[in-house]
Amino acid sequence: MEKVDFILKNAIVLTMDEEFHQFEPGAVAIKGSKIVGVGPQTEILQQFAAIEVHDCDNKVLIPGLVDVHTHVPMTLLRGLADDLRLDVWLLGYMMPVEREFVSPKFVRTGTALACAEMIRGGITTFADMYYFEDDVAEVTAEIGMRALCGETILKFPSPDSESYDEALEYTRKFIKKWKGHPLITPVIAPHAPYTCTEELLRSASHLAQEFDVPLHIHISETSQEVEECRKEHGMPVVPYAKKQEIFDAKAIAAHCVHIDEGEMRTLKHHGTGVAHNPSSNLKLASGMANVPLMIELGLNVGIGTDGTASNNDLDMFEEIRLTSFLGKGRSGDPTALPARTVLLMATRMGAQALHLGKVTGSIEPGKAADIILVDIHEIHNSPRFRRDLNGIYAQLVYASKSTDVSDVMVNGKWLMRNRELLTVDEKKLLQIGQEYAVQIDAFLDEREHSVLSKLIAIGGASEQESFEVQAKVPIRDIEPVLIALKKQDIQVIRTRHYREYDTYFSFESPEQGHIRFREDHFVGEDGNVTHVRSRLTHIGQTREHHFPQKVLLSRSRFLAPANQSLRFYKEYFKPVSEKEINKERLRFLISYQGTEFFVNIDTVNEPKLGHFLEIKSRTWSRKDAEQKSKLVLKLIRHLNASPDATITEDYIEMAGREGIQNHL
Amino acid sequence: MEKVDFILKNAIVLTMDEEFHQFEPGAVAIKGSKIVGVGPQTEILQQFAAIEVHDCDNKVLIPGLVDVHTHVPMTLLRGLADDLRLDVWLLGYMMPVEREFVSPKFVRTGTALACAEMIRGGITTFADMYYFEDDVAEVTAEIGMRALCGETILKFPSPDSESYDEALEYTRKFIKKWKGHPLITPVIAPHAPYTCTEELLRSASHLAQEFDVPLHIHISETSQEVEECRKEHGMPVVPYAKKQEIFDAKAIAAHCVHIDEGEMRTLKHHGTGVAHNPSSNLKLASGMANVPLMIELGLNVGIGTDGTASNNDLDMFEEIRLTSFLGKGRSGDPTALPARTVLLMATRMGAQALHLGKVTGSIEPGKAADIILVDIHEIHNSPRFRRDLNGIYAQLVYASKSTDVSDVMVNGKWLMRNRELLTVDEKKLLQIGQEYAVQIDAFLDEREHSVLSKLIAIGGASEQESFEVQAKVPIRDIEPVLIALKKQDIQVIRTRHYREYDTYFSFESPEQGHIRFREDHFVGEDGNVTHVRSRLTHIGQTREHHFPQKVLLSRSRFLAPANQSLRFYKEYFKPVSEKEINKERLRFLISYQGTEFFVNIDTVNEPKLGHFLEIKSRTWSRKDAEQKSKLVLKLIRHLNASPDATITEDYIEMAGREGIQNHL
Repeated sequence: MEKVDFILKNAIVLTMDEEFHQFEPGAVAIKGSKIVGVGPQTEILQQFAAIEVHDCDNKVLIPGLVDVHTHVPMTLLRGLADDLRLDVWLLGYMMPVEREFVSPKFVRTGTALACAEMIRGGITTFADMYYFEDDVAEVTAEIGMRALCGETILKFPSPDSESYDEALEYTRKFIKKWKGHPLITPVIAPHAPYTCTEELLRSASHLAQEFDVPLHIHISETSQEVEECRKEHGMPVVPYAKKQEIFDAKAIAAHCVHIDEGEMRTLKHHGTGVAHNPSSNLKLASGMANVPLMIELGLNVGIGTDGTASNNDLDMFEEIRLTSFLGKGRSGDPTALPARTVLLMATRMGAQALHLGKVTGSIEPGKAADIILVDIHEIHNSPRFRRDLNGIYAQLVYASKSTDVSDVMVNGKWLMRNRELLTVDEKKLLQIGQEYAVQIDAFLDEREHSVLSKLIAIGGASEQESFEVQAKVPIRDIEPVLIALKKQDIQVIRTRHYREYDTYFSFESPEQGHIRFREDHFVGEDGNVTHVRSRLTHIGQTREHHFPQKVLLSRSRFLAPANQSLRFYKEYFKPVSEKEINKERLRFLISYQGTEFFVNIDTVNEPKLGHFLEIKSRTWSRKDAEQKSKLVLKLIRHLNASPDATITEDYIEMAGREGIQNHL
Repeated sequence: MEKVDFILKNAIVLTMDEEFHQFEPGAVAIKGSKIVGVGPQTEILQQFAAIEVHDCDNKVLIPGLVDVHTHVPMTLLRGLADDLRLDVWLLGYMMPVEREFVSPKFVRTGTALACAEMIRGGITTFADMYYFEDDVAEVTAEIGMRALCGETILKFPSPDSESYDEALEYTRKFIKKWKGHPLITPVIAPHAPYTCTEELLRSASHLAQEFDVPLHIHISETSQEVEECRKEHGMPVVPYAKKQEIFDAKAIAAHCVHIDEGEMRTLKHHGTGVAHNPSSNLKLASGMANVPLMIELGLNVGIGTDGTASNNDLDMFEEIRLTSFLGKGRSGDPTALPARTVLLMATRMGAQALHLGKVTGSIEPGKAADIILVDIHEIHNSPRFRRDLNGIYAQLVYASKSTDVSDVMVNGKWLMRNRELLTVDEKKLLQIGQEYAVQIDAFLDEREHSVLSKLIAIGGASEQESFEVQAKVPIRDIEPVLIALKKQDIQVIRTRHYREYDTYFSFESPEQGHIRFREDHFVGEDGNVTHVRSRLTHIGQTREHHFPQKVLLSRSRFLAPANQSLRFYKEYFKPVSEKEINKERLRFLISYQGTEFFVNIDTVNEPKLGHFLEIKSRTWSRKDAEQKSKLVLKLIRHLNASPDATITEDYIEMAGREGIQNHL
């Protein structure tokens, strides 16, 4: 009899091998890190003598689950912000918080929390993609899980690299350090085609090929990504990435929600694995991947949880079930993606998608002892029908819960026995995790408290500490002003014609001021719009001083280019009300008595407020401001308007007053 | 201080009331069956003195979940048959097994199993629809859950009623017995518009109105149902049901997967509740209901698990999450159906959908004490962010599991404390449930063992114990036979012209015989097809005797009208191979020498087997058969063919032989 370390007996063994062998009662023999025997219990007990024989209590014994796409350190951001648009979620919350908090300690804590949750739910292998991946790898190896650790590379600075050259250098060292480790496979992870340059994508692929390690990348997650790729490169994402040699590496393409049959065939041709993430794709409303077609074409499609920041858990039982449900629901065919197929995707096929097919994913001699036990005798999983061999797969997929996993072994080592974690101190982790949550809450509370901080948080706002003298006066007609501007003592330096479409956001507390989203349509001499610019302005309670006759001294406003859509800002700033103001503006930069002024001749069309003359000038000192305030009044008169009629109200204030249709 | 029975303190109380009040730490005071106080812990402890103060350990306290659509006794059929077409599943498995097994004992066992699972998962109220509903009600009341018990009414005989008159009578008695019970609301449940007559639908509505009880019905579950309703009644399902006065009762419309905005407005106008069943609708590939629009229109939409035979569990946490996910995924809007909204659907709005809004669904003084505690401090639900008041709803919806429910109270009575069920004996139930599974397995095994039994199981097959004498001979041309049929001693009684499209199913064991699916296209005198008929025939190894010159005595075949599609039968019988045979058949009923014969002149076009003359005659005795066998040979010669060339092979056997293109 051959001596082995463990025999697991009295199990319903589902091998998930090519022939889907089942043994009941079955047994598995394990020596060192490897499976050396699997079969009917009587045969295994005759063939092997073990140091420890584990009675599996008629539980189901299957290969450990393979989570093919996740971001484990983000476990610390679970539930931070939900039910938001992808861009609000990413730009408004994830990225500012990551910029502030992600560090090696953060990554190590998040990884350990994630490992604990994954082990509890029967996951033995995962494919990660994050920053400080060396720390992810160290913690994972200590805990004893199997992982592909993908160091993220971006064209922007990231929490662990100032530039992508630096990121590539980090990755090279990281790969050298971990290559050949029994549990950790180092991976290079260019984040996505749209967040990398072409040069960067090629460099990443070359590095992966040089060391023969996998490459992990997001592909076609949203339809917007595909549209933009078509617009910019004249082709969808897969051919574009192929052109950058991405698939010449052992690639793993995450999401693939919006790829067509031709793109699937390209991936198949290159042996690229696909990571399907049903919960994440639904929750972020990215869409539903055509998995039945991918499977039909023979692609290796694995199932992933994605990160907990977008899911919000690492529960493969949920993802497996959802994969089957969506396969059926999307195609209208209830026989699509049956239970056995989706369980295969979560085990052997998932391992193949990660280019780990020879190592893990099935219960076969020679494979690593990555094994879990699932209790199917709970009340939510009864009764058990045995007529059809597929019934047991259906029980696992449609009725089992992640909490039914009782025992987990990776590489021949127990990580959980009888629901007790053996390599993670859960209590301590929960505590450290909560400390992070308190800090992040405080950081966001402070930011959320002020509209201005929120504006600054999303980047791009420039805080210019300058002051402005300004006065505004209603006019009956614009012609007299235009004529006056031709007077000899006025030198017109520059003229512009805009149509300005403004949306003002108001907040509960008036102290917050307003956020103005402005679309400037530049009107050319021929009357056509030549181009459009969007800007975001924070208009605070910034009036510093009233000079005589309602000339104001204002602190200048915070201005940011509005790269996102109006809807983005609405959902991000969550104003209590909003107001539209549209006007026609003739803007003149003039010199008058040795001083530069901006002269705006406005026609406010929406609401119908009428015509206004507005005069502004930058200022740097109180004394200068006082002189300019006098000059402003003089200029108003000189432009055929009445300095006695000046008003201090903003258009937004006028628009807010009821019953006022016209100021004259 | 007011004296009460219980104070539940140190909880994160989510009231789910109109203003979504939250109290942390909060407390709830309970007197008898009712909530009498809810608020901040300090206030409640000052206001009330309790016999028992329960410390909730900072768990979340919410209203018990409301499962608005299920079939609890079907818990005994969980996992019986999965990944099948709806019709194969229903007609091939569910209905035959229900016909055989459903009894009061079956219903009581299934109900108790379901109650145990539901209590464990935090469900306190459910709306059932099944047979022997009086037994469902008794068991549910004993266990202490709240339920709407809907007695099913169909136009067909059902397990508890031979006719629908009987079913209506049963229901009337049932309603009288339970009306006014503190936990049970009796309900009339006409199964669906397409399984009821118009008269039946009206009678059901009148009965519901007479006793002021709710009416529960399936509406627009599949697109096929809608198409057929349009075809038959010229309108979609909701207007049709409205015409039958269904919505004049306090109705609950289950599924509503395929209804348009107009139909939604009709339901809204009548105050009809909607039961959304996301898992079931996906798993059976029925589709995805437009829930965001229903909510926008102000409908009361609750969430249901549907029965475990189609789900396969009673896990409201899964359904709540899926409701949100599908709302987002279907609409492409990640802000659709946010966490708070779907939790509302599963509590207060669900109760409103069941017309129980005044009784349960929120934590408010005056409402029944239907309360659950959910532990959110497990590793899969950490850390906790508190910045946003919506975060706690997101934790419950996106990361909590049904197994996180620790305590359940219904109507002021504990049903589960610290995960221990207090009113159900789980072990005993599991055992009885398993005994049923063994019996059902045996029943189906026996049936599945024989193709003939499977044919009989789906109904309609007529077993005619008659015998037939037959002979077949290849002919070079059909003209000589047609000419011979005009001979004076042959009287042609009837002539038919068919095109016959046959599909033969073969099985592993030849003893099983074949199943033939035949489409008969009747060809009129003008050469056009006048109508089509489909029939299913079991062709067994039924040759009883060979007479000289290959005249056969056969037992007649089992014949059934083929009401389902070819694809249905393929998936139901699961043949190992199939074969197409298409032929042109001229069929004559003739009288020859005082005996009636069927004369078939066949031209087999697919595969190209050529022309055949086939002669058949019914027989009842061996002696008669012998005489007829001689007469058959005589007739063959009389029809200008050669009795020496007779063959015994079926077309399917000829088609099976390789290399044979033509028999002449």
